[in-house]
Amino acid sequence: MEELLSKRTRYPTSDAMSKFVLAQDPEVISFAGGLPDNNLFPIEEIKLCQEEMLEKEGKIVFQYSSSIGDINLRGWIGEEFFIKWGKKVPVENIIITEGSQQALDLIGKLFLDPDDYALIESPGYLGTIQAWRIFQPKLVGISQDENGINLEELEEIIKELPSPPKVLYVVPDFSNPAGTCLPLERRKRLIEIAERYKFYIVEDLAYSLLAYDKDTLPPLLTLKDSEYIITIGSFSKILSPGLRTGFIIAPKKLIRPLRLLKEASDLCCGTYAQKLIYYFCKNGFLKNHLEKLRKIYKEKRDKLREALENYFLNKATWNNPEGGFFFFLVFPEDINCYDLAEKALENKTSFVPGEEFFVNGKGKNTARISFSQINLEDIFEGVKRLLRAWEDLQK
Amino acid sequence: MEELLSKRTRYPTSDAMSKFVLAQDPEVISFAGGLPDNNLFPIEEIKLCQEEMLEKEGKIVFQYSSSIGDINLRGWIGEEFFIKWGKKVPVENIIITEGSQQALDLIGKLFLDPDDYALIESPGYLGTIQAWRIFQPKLVGISQDENGINLEELEEIIKELPSPPKVLYVVPDFSNPAGTCLPLERRKRLIEIAERYKFYIVEDLAYSLLAYDKDTLPPLLTLKDSEYIITIGSFSKILSPGLRTGFIIAPKKLIRPLRLLKEASDLCCGTYAQKLIYYFCKNGFLKNHLEKLRKIYKEKRDKLREALENYFLNKATWNNPEGGFFFFLVFPEDINCYDLAEKALENKTSFVPGEEFFVNGKGKNTARISFSQINLEDIFEGVKRLLRAWEDLQK
Repeated sequence: MEELLSKRTRYPTSDAMSKFVLAQDPEVISFAGGLPDNNLFPIEEIKLCQEEMLEKEGKIVFQYSSSIGDINLRGWIGEEFFIKWGKKVPVENIIITEGSQQALDLIGKLFLDPDDYALIESPGYLGTIQAWRIFQPKLVGISQDENGINLEELEEIIKELPSPPKVLYVVPDFSNPAGTCLPLERRKRLIEIAERYKFYIVEDLAYSLLAYDKDTLPPLLTLKDSEYIITIGSFSKILSPGLRTGFIIAPKKLIRPLRLLKEASDLCCGTYAQKLIYYFCKNGFLKNHLEKLRKIYKEKRDKLREALENYFLNKATWNNPEGGFFFFLVFPEDINCYDLAEKALENKTSFVPGEEFFVNGKGKNTARISFSQINLEDIFEGVKRLLRAWEDLQK
Repeated sequence: MEELLSKRTRYPTSDAMSKFVLAQDPEVISFAGGLPDNNLFPIEEIKLCQEEMLEKEGKIVFQYSSSIGDINLRGWIGEEFFIKWGKKVPVENIIITEGSQQALDLIGKLFLDPDDYALIESPGYLGTIQAWRIFQPKLVGISQDENGINLEELEEIIKELPSPPKVLYVVPDFSNPAGTCLPLERRKRLIEIAERYKFYIVEDLAYSLLAYDKDTLPPLLTLKDSEYIITIGSFSKILSPGLRTGFIIAPKKLIRPLRLLKEASDLCCGTYAQKLIYYFCKNGFLKNHLEKLRKIYKEKRDKLREALENYFLNKATWNNPEGGFFFFLVFPEDINCYDLAEKALENKTSFVPGEEFFVNGKGKNTARISFSQINLEDIFEGVKRLLRAWEDLQK
C-alpha cells in the first residue's frame, strides 16, 4: 500500500520530539517543551472578554468568517503590534493563520517546488524544517554564531548554489533553539542581501515581545519597506497556543495567492478564537499580561542560568538569552546529546537533543534547554538530575 | 517577482464564489452560501459547556494539545458518531482536523504527487477541488445521476487511465452541490471497485446527520472494514463552523503519516474549541440540537421546493434533497447560469453558478441554490427575484 503515498511523505522522520517532549511521567522535570507556562494563562481576563464578545457579537462568533481573518484583529495587529518601533501596517497586508505553523505551511505552499533552495538559520526552528520539508526543497542551513545568522557564510552559500534561494527563515529575536538576537547592523545587511539576490526573508517574531533585559531591536519589517520581507507572528507564546492564532504580513501582491492557499487549506481560522483574542487585545489586557510574562520568565531564566553555572560550568558552554524560552548548550564533541537525553529520562528529567534543529546532521553535541514551562522551584533539582545524567554518560 | 511563486499556485482561479457568496449588500436575499443558519447556533448550551469546561479542565484549554486531537473528543466520535449504524470506531483511527477542509488538505498531501489521478464526483464539492488542485494531480470528474456517482462510468474511466487513481471523493449523503444520495447497492459496489483497483474512497459525511425525510443510509465505513475507505466528517454543519473542528477516520497504517503532516501543517487543532465541542456532545446537547436543525431546515427545504414549483416548473429541473442544504437546478443548455447569477445580483438575490463544481468546464446551465441560511419568510421573495433575473436574461 505504501506506493500510494506521495513522494513528499518520504522524508526521514524522528521520534525525538515525541519521545522527549511528551514524556508523560509526572515525575519528570522537563526542560524539553517550548510551551508557555500553563499557570500564566490569563483566565479571568479571558472570561471577561468572552462575556463581552458574546454580548456584542452574538451568534456570528460560531459562523464561518473571512478566509484572510477577522478584520478587527487584523486591524489591531496593524495598528498596535509594531507601534513600539513606530510602525503601522496596512490591514490589507495581513492574513490570520492557525498559529505561526500554518503561516510556515502557507509560505512553503506559496514558494517551494521540489528541489528549490530554501535557507534556514542553523540551528533553526524544527517546525519550519517540518513545514517546508514536505514541499521537497533543498533545505540549506546557514550557521549561527552568538549573534545569530552568519551573513558572510550566507552570501558565500548563495553564490555557490546552482539556482538562487527562494526563501530564508530567521528568528531575529531570542531564536529557537539558539536563543540568539540578530544585531541591528546584521538586520540591515540581511535586507540588502535579500534585495540583491532577490529572495524572501521570512522573519518569525514568535518571541519578540518577550524581552527580559532591554528593549527588543526593531523587526526587519520596521526597518525598510522592502518587497522581500515576510513577517510572521503568533499569539501562542504571548497569550495562548490553544487558541491557535498567528499571522502573516506580506507584500500586497502575495496576499491574493496566500488567501487562495489559505482557503484551500482550511477555509478560514476559527471565528471564536480570533474574536476572543481581538477583545483581549483591544481591552488593553495584552499589555499588562506581557509585563507579567516578562517578569516571571525572567526569574526562571535567571534561576536556570544560576543552576547551569553551578553544575555545568566546565562541562558545556551556553548562550545568554535576553528573552524567549531557550538556553542552547554546546558540549565537547565527544558528548552525544541524544544519548544524554536518554540518560536524562532515566534520571527523570528531559530536554531536546540539539541535532533535531540542524538540517545537515550537525549539532550532535548540543542541547536545547527550555525554562518556559518548568516551575521555578524545580529548576535546580532538574539541573542536578541533568548532571547525574551527564555523569551516567561518562561511565 | 512572479517567477518565485511555486508551480502549484498557477491553477486557474475563479472569483465566482467571492462574487456571489460574499455579496455584502444587506438587501440581497442569498441562496449562495452553504453556511449553517446563524440563528440556530445553540449559544445557551455552549455557554453552559464553557463554564463546565473551564471549571473542570482549567487553564490547559489554552495550551497546545495533541497533534492528533483531544482524546476525549476522538473517543466520543469513535463511540457515538456512527452508533445509529451499529458501528464503533477505535480511537487510534481518528484524527481531529480544522474542519473537513483541512482533512482534504492532509489527504491531498498524503497521496497526491503531480500528475497523479484523483477522481471526484461531478458536480463535486468545490472545497475538494480547491484543496487537491494545489498538489497538481489530474482531477477527473465522474458524472452523477439522480442517485449520485455513476459506477459504470467510474469503472470505464479507471480502465482508460494510463495509471490507476489514488483517491476518489464522494459525499454519499445529500451531496454538495447536487443534493444526491448514494443508494445502498452503489455504496457496496463502490467499495468493491475501490478494493479491486486499489484506490482510496474519501467519503465526506458533512451532511449525513441532516436527514429530513427518513434515516440516512449507512456510511461506507460502517458497511465494511476495508483498507480502502477514508471517512471525513465535520461539526461545521451540525454545530458550528466557527469552532473549526472536523475529523479523519483512516486505516491505522495511515495515521502516523497523517499525524506528521498535521504537525507540519499547524501542530495541532485549537484545544479550547475541541474540548468545548466534546462537552457539548457528551452532555447530550448534540442529539437535541440535531432534532431542532432537522425540523427547521426541513421547513426551509419544503418552502423552497414549493417556490421552485411555483415559479420555475417549465424552466428548469431539480433534485429532491432528502437532507443537507442544496437544490441543484439544471436549465436548458442555452441558459448560461453565470450570466443568470449576474442578473440575479442585479435583482438582489444570489446563487452559485454550477460550473464552479465541475472540473471539466461542464455545467454552465446549472445552479446551486442553498436553503440553509436564508430566512423562511424570504424564500418566496427570493425565488420571485430569481424569476425576474431569468426573465431579464431572455431579453
